[in-house]
Amino acid sequence: MNDRERTRRPGGRSARVGAEVHQAVTDLISERGYGNFTVGEVAARAGVADSSIYRRWGSLESLLSDVALNRLNARSPMPDTGTLDGDLRAYAAQVAREITGPDGLALVRLAVALSSNGQQGLRAADHLRAERTRQLQSMLDRARERGEQAPDTFGVLDHILAPMYIRVLFGMVPLTPDYIDGLVDRLL
Amino acid sequence: MNDRERTRRPGGRSARVGAEVHQAVTDLISERGYGNFTVGEVAARAGVADSSIYRRWGSLESLLSDVALNRLNARSPMPDTGTLDGDLRAYAAQVAREITGPDGLALVRLAVALSSNGQQGLRAADHLRAERTRQLQSMLDRARERGEQAPDTFGVLDHILAPMYIRVLFGMVPLTPDYIDGLVDRLL
Repeated sequence: MNDRERTRRPGGRSARVGAEVHQAVTDLISERGYGNFTVGEVAARAGVADSSIYRRWGSLESLLSDVALNRLNARSPMPDTGTLDGDLRAYAAQVAREITGPDGLALVRLAVALSSNGQQGLRAADHLRAERTRQLQSMLDRARERGEQAPDTFGVLDHILAPMYIRVLFGMVPLTPDYIDGLVDRLL
Repeated sequence: MNDRERTRRPGGRSARVGAEVHQAVTDLISERGYGNFTVGEVAARAGVADSSIYRRWGSLESLLSDVALNRLNARSPMPDTGTLDGDLRAYAAQVAREITGPDGLALVRLAVALSSNGQQGLRAADHLRAERTRQLQSMLDRARERGEQAPDTFGVLDHILAPMYIRVLFGMVPLTPDYIDGLVDRLL
């Protein structure tokens, strides 16, 4: 990037570094598995200095958590179709697309690793789970306000998210539209 | 062990080595995660020679698969209570007991790692899954022969095993008897 580009797109470099660091993390998880790389290796892969990573994310753990939150749809808008049936179908399809995409398995493994990796990992997993639960809760609350019968967030976890996660982990893909709709039908 | 004991208990040493090697693997997975240890480290922890492990199991991969098959109930007898309802409740409780026990999280992580770890891992996971599916299938076949309506093995995976596995991975334990019975009720 030259000076002119830098002037034209303030914040462009920061966003690009963010994307490159996130991709480096995802690639390293795919290749080596969670826990088998350092901040230095992420930095080298992304073409940035170690210090940039520490300045922005503080630690490998919080970088991993940030990647998981961003990529596992935890920050993307939840569907709002006007019916619970429509919302759940759209949400399940969105999660299925993400976890069966090119980095899907790496992301599911990251979520699982963050959940199972002791004290530090649990904080990251708690954050991810709290974020997801809050989003799901507001979808289910909207349904109840419209007078619809809605399951609780545990029902969605147990009977929509858990089967899809386990099938991806066990290599039982693709998750077909019929399969996903079947999970929603059964829950509702 | 002296010569007299060796005469009295043929096979005793082999069984003890097997148990010690299995425990060493489980401990190393708990401490370091899957993929972060070698045959040499398993041997040192179990107090046996590397060559004993290679002679008996051939590779780290097939040792890990053997541990998973043994510990995740894949070789224990399936319940046969006379009703599908009774069989599924007993089976779900048995899996729950195993995956929430002292080495439970390590075993679930092992199953997940074997499933997601590329070509070699997939062979081990296929073996584990084929074994489980065969056992479940015969339970469900018995129910149909008695004239009961039975779900298929995918239903049991999606709505009984997957929720329990994900809850253990996410640290959402214990799995209470009410919770487990609720999963069975919903499936039936």
